[in-house]
Amino acid sequence: MSGQNTLQNAFKHAKYQVGGHGARNMKVLQDAFQGLDGNLESDMYGKGEVIEEFQNKMAAILGKESAVFFPSGTMAQQIALRIWCDQKGIKKAAYHPLSHLEIHEEDGLKELHQIETVLLADENRVIQLEDVTSMNEDVACLLLELPQREIGGQLPSYKTLEDISAYCKEKGIKLHLDGARLFEILPYYKKSAADICHLFDSVYVSFYKGIGAIAGAILAGDQAFTEKSKIWKRRHGGDLISLYPYFLSANYYFDQRIDKMKQYFEGAMELSELYNQCFGVSTIPQVPVSNMFHVHFDASKEDMEHILTEICQEKNLGLSSYVREVSETSSYFEISIGDLYLNLPKEKLMDGIKVLDDKMKKRKGK
Amino acid sequence: MSGQNTLQNAFKHAKYQVGGHGARNMKVLQDAFQGLDGNLESDMYGKGEVIEEFQNKMAAILGKESAVFFPSGTMAQQIALRIWCDQKGIKKAAYHPLSHLEIHEEDGLKELHQIETVLLADENRVIQLEDVTSMNEDVACLLLELPQREIGGQLPSYKTLEDISAYCKEKGIKLHLDGARLFEILPYYKKSAADICHLFDSVYVSFYKGIGAIAGAILAGDQAFTEKSKIWKRRHGGDLISLYPYFLSANYYFDQRIDKMKQYFEGAMELSELYNQCFGVSTIPQVPVSNMFHVHFDASKEDMEHILTEICQEKNLGLSSYVREVSETSSYFEISIGDLYLNLPKEKLMDGIKVLDDKMKKRKGK
Repeated sequence: MSGQNTLQNAFKHAKYQVGGHGARNMKVLQDAFQGLDGNLESDMYGKGEVIEEFQNKMAAILGKESAVFFPSGTMAQQIALRIWCDQKGIKKAAYHPLSHLEIHEEDGLKELHQIETVLLADENRVIQLEDVTSMNEDVACLLLELPQREIGGQLPSYKTLEDISAYCKEKGIKLHLDGARLFEILPYYKKSAADICHLFDSVYVSFYKGIGAIAGAILAGDQAFTEKSKIWKRRHGGDLISLYPYFLSANYYFDQRIDKMKQYFEGAMELSELYNQCFGVSTIPQVPVSNMFHVHFDASKEDMEHILTEICQEKNLGLSSYVREVSETSSYFEISIGDLYLNLPKEKLMDGIKVLDDKMKKRKGK
Repeated sequence: MSGQNTLQNAFKHAKYQVGGHGARNMKVLQDAFQGLDGNLESDMYGKGEVIEEFQNKMAAILGKESAVFFPSGTMAQQIALRIWCDQKGIKKAAYHPLSHLEIHEEDGLKELHQIETVLLADENRVIQLEDVTSMNEDVACLLLELPQREIGGQLPSYKTLEDISAYCKEKGIKLHLDGARLFEILPYYKKSAADICHLFDSVYVSFYKGIGAIAGAILAGDQAFTEKSKIWKRRHGGDLISLYPYFLSANYYFDQRIDKMKQYFEGAMELSELYNQCFGVSTIPQVPVSNMFHVHFDASKEDMEHILTEICQEKNLGLSSYVREVSETSSYFEISIGDLYLNLPKEKLMDGIKVLDDKMKKRKGK
């Protein structure tokens, strides 16, 4: 078995795991639906009481006129950018070089919508006001991802958001929020979702990150925007006869977890501090601004797989199920704090981190 | 309340309904999942044992090398045509004027894929060999929908299918099957799904028509084709982290209903005969070739809504929940035979049809 598979397997069998909400299994669906009235009628191609209720609830939470449920954020966001590009008659959108659209969607935006992209900022930092004001190209819209996931979940200051929003409004650039992890950053900004969304023309939020549901996304904005998004949703093949398996479970887990975002955030701050005290270990950001961060090691992927596997086996504690290579001598994993962390015995964690520190020192002969 | 809403409401409250498998409600999902092991792991972005097992099962049933599960047929079919167009370097596909892609998808094929379409045959009949051989334009692929839903579910002869298939092979035109209702036509053709699919390069089947699951589709073909389809699935936003709510329920209802297709077909033949004996009523096709057909009335939509509502109320029997206008003096509805018909007391049905005949005569003073 490869080191990767060995770690994955050891992680699965460890009694305690540090990140996430637990296994993604059938129970997630069963729990969400067991209490529901069996006679409750399905949505039908985006219509019906159940889907409209959920969409209205989300529109209100996001402070937008209207909201539409989508099977995926990939679909919702391409569509948002397409609508803004069509409206302005410019097929160009700006975003961060590590945007989900740029690196995880097989170029759907370009292949399906023929939208050119302008990459703003250096890939290791978030977009700042100057990146926007110094843009040479005329774009229809700008997408900001909060937090910027691929660099550990970093955020600009709230003032920067306000300034970018004001600048875009002045220049007629539509501002779209990739809010896959929007609920997760509210405790840091100490703002409501509506406060933040107020700075944007359109907003996407996800339900399987911090919320921990099965899949699905909401796209919100004004009525004219969301009506257009429904036409594109049909074109994309996302206007399913029934989407209730997703949005009803999204609703179930939203209600269970939305008030725990502060605990997740505090957990992330606590855990990152522990990691940063270990030899050869550091986190990005050093102090998290959401429930997520990246843990970097001055050690190869293979070495770290070996060490993390040992910790699973010796301590019954899964720190991560995988490690990604940065270079031959450095590697990292991403962690998102959820329910499992809240239920993790503190001494168990401290013990595991201590062993990590020892093993990191030992391999350097310290 | 409008006549339309009154009928819909009366239909819902009638003890007996003639078409379909019953209400599309939460119970459909709950039943499919209640027996499953809660620890069974979710698929992850199209990978994992559960999704691969289902895909392999469907590939074997369809006699194709490989199969991919999609959230919708809209997505699967656009992608199939796109792959064939790209392969041939011709952005042109041929299909029937009432193809789902032409009338129900907001022109996704054209808007997202820039594929031009060539409409074959008159809209009131199915595509014949001569329609294909006399085509003036060079197309990459031809889509055949079996049965042709919008004209009551009509079929060409099996010989015609074989001839079209042979002609396309000879001319290098890829042949794609819109098999949304493929399983429903097997009893008429007396062929296996694999026999029919063998005539096609690529095949789409649906799981919420005769199978009666929640949503979802399979796209099948050779390995090179399905691998490309996965890339386009991601671009479309259909590569969800978890699709199991759909394919596991598809699997559950497939196993429950696949062997009943002959009963559904026989029910359709029986019921169409009863309708054709009524005054001012006829069916298309006159003798069904699947579990579906259209019921046409020499009466306005409004008159028929009124009559069907009365039958719901007087006889507790829902013949249809809606009527569509053809002209000021003619209208129709579509019916698909499913589990409800198999459980419907015959005397109840005969009684209702007798009342329909009486009312149709009475309004003409007969």
